[in-house]
Amino acid sequence: MLIVQKYGGTSVGDCSRIENVAKKIVSVKEQGNSLVVVVSAMSGETDKLLGFATYLNTLPNEREVDKVLSTGEIVTSSLLAIALDKLGYKAVGLSGRAAGIITDTAHTKARIDKVNTEIINNYLKEDYIVVVAGFQGQSIDGHTTTLGRGGSDLSAVALAGALKADLCEIYTDVDGVFTTDPRIDDKARKIDKISYDEMLELASLGAKVLLNRSVELAKKLNVKIITRNSFNDNMGTLITNEEEIMEKPIITGIALDKNQARISIVNVDDKPGIAAELFTSLANANINVDMIVQTIGRDGKTDIDFTIPKTDIALSKRILDDFKHSTQSVEFDEDIAKVSIVGLGMKSHSGVASKTFGTMAKEGINIMMISTSEIKISMIIDLKYAELAVRALHSAYDLDK
Amino acid sequence: MLIVQKYGGTSVGDCSRIENVAKKIVSVKEQGNSLVVVVSAMSGETDKLLGFATYLNTLPNEREVDKVLSTGEIVTSSLLAIALDKLGYKAVGLSGRAAGIITDTAHTKARIDKVNTEIINNYLKEDYIVVVAGFQGQSIDGHTTTLGRGGSDLSAVALAGALKADLCEIYTDVDGVFTTDPRIDDKARKIDKISYDEMLELASLGAKVLLNRSVELAKKLNVKIITRNSFNDNMGTLITNEEEIMEKPIITGIALDKNQARISIVNVDDKPGIAAELFTSLANANINVDMIVQTIGRDGKTDIDFTIPKTDIALSKRILDDFKHSTQSVEFDEDIAKVSIVGLGMKSHSGVASKTFGTMAKEGINIMMISTSEIKISMIIDLKYAELAVRALHSAYDLDK
Repeated sequence: MLIVQKYGGTSVGDCSRIENVAKKIVSVKEQGNSLVVVVSAMSGETDKLLGFATYLNTLPNEREVDKVLSTGEIVTSSLLAIALDKLGYKAVGLSGRAAGIITDTAHTKARIDKVNTEIINNYLKEDYIVVVAGFQGQSIDGHTTTLGRGGSDLSAVALAGALKADLCEIYTDVDGVFTTDPRIDDKARKIDKISYDEMLELASLGAKVLLNRSVELAKKLNVKIITRNSFNDNMGTLITNEEEIMEKPIITGIALDKNQARISIVNVDDKPGIAAELFTSLANANINVDMIVQTIGRDGKTDIDFTIPKTDIALSKRILDDFKHSTQSVEFDEDIAKVSIVGLGMKSHSGVASKTFGTMAKEGINIMMISTSEIKISMIIDLKYAELAVRALHSAYDLDK
Repeated sequence: MLIVQKYGGTSVGDCSRIENVAKKIVSVKEQGNSLVVVVSAMSGETDKLLGFATYLNTLPNEREVDKVLSTGEIVTSSLLAIALDKLGYKAVGLSGRAAGIITDTAHTKARIDKVNTEIINNYLKEDYIVVVAGFQGQSIDGHTTTLGRGGSDLSAVALAGALKADLCEIYTDVDGVFTTDPRIDDKARKIDKISYDEMLELASLGAKVLLNRSVELAKKLNVKIITRNSFNDNMGTLITNEEEIMEKPIITGIALDKNQARISIVNVDDKPGIAAELFTSLANANINVDMIVQTIGRDGKTDIDFTIPKTDIALSKRILDDFKHSTQSVEFDEDIAKVSIVGLGMKSHSGVASKTFGTMAKEGINIMMISTSEIKISMIIDLKYAELAVRALHSAYDLDK
């Protein structure tokens, strides 16, 4: 098998951890696999380098920032190659550029355009373990670029796709994706298999494991991902396409998001263009609107409810001042939570909505907003009931069994 | 003018020093010059990175070591570009590879084969200040290489030669080359101009300023070097070819080397091949023999005296055990010093030898070995007279005036 592995910053946080990772890699190599390993910078290194750059200029030239930051991963990749060499295995460290990763020119948040696999394939043919510096590439105009947050995962997924690898293993310091946050419900279980779409909907559960942009790329390139804990040998969570998942549970996981705030525009004029005007103003201010619910108008008036990140409350208030002319009042509510239940099986099962709402009713929890997709039901509820709602739903759908 | 500047590790030791260097560069740029700036790693950085590599393997793979070490200079070059950008000047940081420096494949001690100047010239045309990561290049087979000790100076000289720069300024933390070590004779004066050949012969005086391999390259490429102190505005020492130096002083400087030991092979058989055999054995053990003196043989026997670095005494003793068969005795003397007087004017002046030996005689200093070149007289004397000899010669040749 050709396996792409990725080790994050804490997994390669110091030299002794790099030695441990080398041993892990060798054990996989010993089973007859070919290996491409993507590494992050040693933990703390990227922040240190960014600190230098921002000391010199609070808005440093991003082209140069990328060159500075990229060195962190280059150091780790060659150190890991040295550790593998010490164990008697041929290994080479490659920068993103040397590994053939071509990006656009959007410095500090570049997108991968393509991967030239020739160099890596040549090393694999000669039985090398190829260690690639994650988080980086080279733009078409020849400068080093970095890929932004979660960039090393993206490097691994892109390489796995381009090399047609059998598997992409993402090593972090957690065991995988859980049915819900174990800090909220200690009966949370690790999920063995999950589809790309479920993973995308459960973003808040998966955030510590894999950001949505990497899941999206994996879905597009059809890369099978296993997320695992580099500090143990547990099996982790397989993220793959729907077809690979035979048993489709009705509910796979329950996510909780406490970072949203609700805004209600009450008794706004119910005429075309009002909503468009409102959400265009918010979008222009880069405010990410999540759920939107509009009731059917009555007497030429309607209510519009929507949620935004709590951090954007102040900015939203200023923008919504402009709407005072056409509305009776604007209400802001920060004490809310969004609870989402996600599952592929929902597609073919009726009764999920009624069971979900019934569970909430039994606990005396009022639902303020509802929004649904094919595989998800999200509800906005009072913040104080957030954990209770998660535990009740987790139990109602037997996720603890 | 096109000026290549080089700043060493202490000059760019932290962010505030990088800011100072940026201001220095800008003042030169403001005078209408084009600038290529070569930088070392921030002081301590190379040792830290090498420490990681040797922790993982006491003899780490040198190809990977080079990739790790090269990041130190890349960070400094982009940080300096950020500082220049902040001051309102267009600046770009380039790795050795990106700057077109091509080397052989001798990792950790590569030699520069050639410099492709196209990229740098394009930036200069667009009025950029080009900041190049020193100490590194790319081998013909595509891997990053480093140039060994003094490598950043070598980068600067090679770039100055390839770009046909008008001047190469090497910034360190000393004012330039002195007539002798100021710690030995407080009357030592800074030399304003010195020829390549004198500089090579005065290696120990120039060591803190510029290693011989850089002087040799400068001589070969006819690059004018000024060594200056980055912490003040003093004029430094110009190192150039003999023709540029109008007034040729008889003696330019006096060097002292206390790191040599003398070995005497007494009453060795005076027959062909003995000396060859001896020095071949020492060369095979990488022992660098400096002065060699052989007296005219008498009664089929002769004496061979030579000097080696003190650090190689133990190794030499083992090798010379094999010579016991053909010699009466081997004597080792660590309590010696080598004093050298160097000057272009010596070529055309008679009487230098007699004045020199006369000065030594007046001080009651016995000369054990003498060796001369066109522009140098070196003497081995008793270690305890080393400083006295230097001061006496410094005064005899009016170097303090």
